[in-house]
Amino acid sequence: MAYITVSVEYGIHCLLWLVDNPQRSLSSRELAELQGVSPSFLAKILPRLEKAGIVKANEGIRGGYRLALPAEKISFLAIIDAIEGYKPLFECQEVRQRCAVFDGAPPDWAISDTCSVHKVILQAEKAMRDALATQTLAAVASRVNRITPDSFIHDVSSWMDKKIETRTIRTSKTARNKT
Amino acid sequence: MAYITVSVEYGIHCLLWLVDNPQRSLSSRELAELQGVSPSFLAKILPRLEKAGIVKANEGIRGGYRLALPAEKISFLAIIDAIEGYKPLFECQEVRQRCAVFDGAPPDWAISDTCSVHKVILQAEKAMRDALATQTLAAVASRVNRITPDSFIHDVSSWMDKKIETRTIRTSKTARNKT
Repeated sequence: MAYITVSVEYGIHCLLWLVDNPQRSLSSRELAELQGVSPSFLAKILPRLEKAGIVKANEGIRGGYRLALPAEKISFLAIIDAIEGYKPLFECQEVRQRCAVFDGAPPDWAISDTCSVHKVILQAEKAMRDALATQTLAAVASRVNRITPDSFIHDVSSWMDKKIETRTIRTSKTARNKT
Repeated sequence: MAYITVSVEYGIHCLLWLVDNPQRSLSSRELAELQGVSPSFLAKILPRLEKAGIVKANEGIRGGYRLALPAEKISFLAIIDAIEGYKPLFECQEVRQRCAVFDGAPPDWAISDTCSVHKVILQAEKAMRDALATQTLAAVASRVNRITPDSFIHDVSSWMDKKIETRTIRTSKTARNKT
């Protein structure tokens, strides 16, 4: 499995639709259908984004998800951490402590501070996280919109409006449509 | 499993011993014993470093592994790529192509170029790889040595010399001691 998984891909693409449609609240099921992805899988991702304060869910027949923050304030790092939790690049097994010469009793100088190998990887992890922290949802939405024809925006708006209009009482029981 | 695995940890710690002992060739089995790690597991890692031109193996009773390059020329990125191969941070599933509005036939504007979400993650991957590329084995060995007492260096040298002196004809058949 890749370090950054398909859950992040689904989550970010959902958020991009919400950036572009602030006037509409979309359910998890509608977002899944729009993107051709598994509704049950997506239904697990949106509550994590809600818990992290990135989206909010409104109940009722016109309910669904909206962004909880301006898109300029939502970084890729915040989205990834919300969906996957903090994942270290590397889990140090402390090989340095096992040296045969220590005979099972590594001295303080060998075990204090972080292992030098681990330190290098932590620096690389920081560089990666810093790069993800500087990218906002707004910036990416803007780049996507630059290549998107007006006709497509119109078609998606119509698709969404039709879905929202044809919602039934049953689906309005919860805005999240978790199942 | 972490993105950077225990194979890399074992491999880098092996290389650090080789930096500090250029006058000795150590077998895979000796390196495993010195570090208290699995000999069969380590025996799979060293051939990858050899294939990448980072270590070389000499045959014979005094054979074993040595660095094939000056430690200043060996980057963490080269070691990681040698051991694990190039591993992308993220494998794009091209969710953007599946939009319901496309009805199974995504237009060229939607599928040409790299997905904007993927581009952001590729930038973060580059930042991580650049950080790993700037760190050399020599620099890390130097940092490790700064905290290492002379008495430990002496003990390890004695341990290695004893191992090398007591090698049998059987183990000399291959310098790598793969099994």
